[in-house]
Amino acid sequence: MSRAFESETLLDAEGALFSEARTVRFQEVDAAGIVFYPRVFEYMSDAYVSFLGARGIHLPKAIEANEYRAPLIHVEADYRAPMRFGDAIHVDVVAVTVGRTSFHLGYRIRHADGRVAAVGQTSHVCVGIPGFRPIPIPEELRAALENKMA
Amino acid sequence: MSRAFESETLLDAEGALFSEARTVRFQEVDAAGIVFYPRVFEYMSDAYVSFLGARGIHLPKAIEANEYRAPLIHVEADYRAPMRFGDAIHVDVVAVTVGRTSFHLGYRIRHADGRVAAVGQTSHVCVGIPGFRPIPIPEELRAALENKMA
Amino acid sequence: MSRAFESETLLDAEGALFSEARTVRFQEVDAAGIVFYPRVFEYMSDAYVSFLGARGIHLPKAIEANEYRAPLIHVEADYRAPMRFGDAIHVDVVAVTVGRTSFHLGYRIRHADGRVAAVGQTSHVCVGIPGFRPIPIPEELRAALENKMA
Amino acid sequence: MSRAFESETLLDAEGALFSEARTVRFQEVDAAGIVFYPRVFEYMSDAYVSFLGARGIHLPKAIEANEYRAPLIHVEADYRAPMRFGDAIHVDVVAVTVGRTSFHLGYRIRHADGRVAAVGQTSHVCVGIPGFRPIPIPEELRAALENKMA
Repeated sequence: MSRAFESETLLDAEGALFSEARTVRFQEVDAAGIVFYPRVFEYMSDAYVSFLGARGIHLPKAIEANEYRAPLIHVEADYRAPMRFGDAIHVDVVAVTVGRTSFHLGYRIRHADGRVAAVGQTSHVCVGIPGFRPIPIPEELRAALENKMA
Repeated sequence: MSRAFESETLLDAEGALFSEARTVRFQEVDAAGIVFYPRVFEYMSDAYVSFLGARGIHLPKAIEANEYRAPLIHVEADYRAPMRFGDAIHVDVVAVTVGRTSFHLGYRIRHADGRVAAVGQTSHVCVGIPGFRPIPIPEELRAALENKMA
Repeated sequence: MSRAFESETLLDAEGALFSEARTVRFQEVDAAGIVFYPRVFEYMSDAYVSFLGARGIHLPKAIEANEYRAPLIHVEADYRAPMRFGDAIHVDVVAVTVGRTSFHLGYRIRHADGRVAAVGQTSHVCVGIPGFRPIPIPEELRAALENKMA
Repeated sequence: MSRAFESETLLDAEGALFSEARTVRFQEVDAAGIVFYPRVFEYMSDAYVSFLGARGIHLPKAIEANEYRAPLIHVEADYRAPMRFGDAIHVDVVAVTVGRTSFHLGYRIRHADGRVAAVGQTSHVCVGIPGFRPIPIPEELRAALENKMA
């Protein structure tokens, strides 16, 4: 699948739609002493859950309602500066685009001094339950992503 | 950063340069009941360690020698079919390309019935210690990646 | 809750009821360079799933059947020798005791040279679905734990 | 090894020496839909890092100084109520005892409504680098644990 955003767009985004501060945990580094690269997607996933929460979508309830899911179809990340145990970082949501059945988020992870540690992006598709077949993005989710909440 | 391989190339690769069988673990699924998407990069990372080992590079020793590292600069994945607890899967290394300071691997994850669960790719850059600045790929690593072992 | 087994019993057990070989993964160490201590419980959990599988209980199917669960009520571990990335280890199930609603397993993790890296134990209680209240251990699970399979 | 604290002591502790609020993450549950039991030790480990930080020991720096480590020798936990994705929980440090070369912490994890989800404890031993042999607890660490900071 092709990417939704150019890396430069995510790097150069002014401000953020949402931002979450965190500290690199003891167990998130690997035997080479820097953050194990898949952990960056955990940072993005955590920010996604918080971002939706801030826009009125409580993901635990949405999952319990069991009407749809929004699994990943494509993800990618560029790594620009290593992160180490104890580093204070910010995980920004810097871009959102919404299609008919799929949507895309762009992320940027910054060190406290402003250096970008990584940029990344995720593409989700809405699927119905049961069946896991694509469905139009449910209205409440679309409104949240487009920031048009009632 | 741009990708090294088209998804179709990874999907349609005939055979594999290396393959590792595993079973989806109890703790690798998430609250939505399917494999948490960053785990797929853990599968790829594990296969990378095994692949290098099979070609004579023992990563634990290479890290202990502390002369260079090969951190990630870009990774991506396409998800095509969900994986669930207990699923028997195969993680294939299906492509390798080697530049001067960087190298790229392509992966494919298959279900037991042949359906592709995901394809992915990783781009590494060799950096010296200390400093973390790009260096030419060390000869023994290059030989392993190019399968030209002594 | 009190422990089911003395550490010495697990340390000194002759042979094992079940054993699983594995290698410490790149991402299982922490910023101090040795295996992050909760990972040892992941090793035990993985061995538990494999052990039940070897005795005819396919845990993914048992969960899908959705009639009961066997969550943990007590766990503990003693750490005796550090494990590092690349270490070849064996995870042994060395003891099982079965009560009316609960059961207990004892584990031992050995280095390739025989040194014990850790011993641990887990106590599970069977609970019904819905409600999560204790129920007598289902017959097929009891038979597997007691190794009295049909 | 024997435990440092009775479960009841941890359960019934009035107040806490330190407390950390967190929310159960999407990826912390397992295929049975509740928090994967080793994650509770990650909660305790994270609280330990924060607790030390609040008392003036910056663990990332202490590790980088590379003079000693404080690995685990014994840990245990009792599970009393399941935790699910999205649950708001508090991780309390409720007890600390300090010996000559080892020290012990007791933890309690509470749901927002006050129900105790788990109690646990960890025993650490101070070891020198290199060698990993027991040494008396360094003064700055002892002062922090005993809350006698300069």
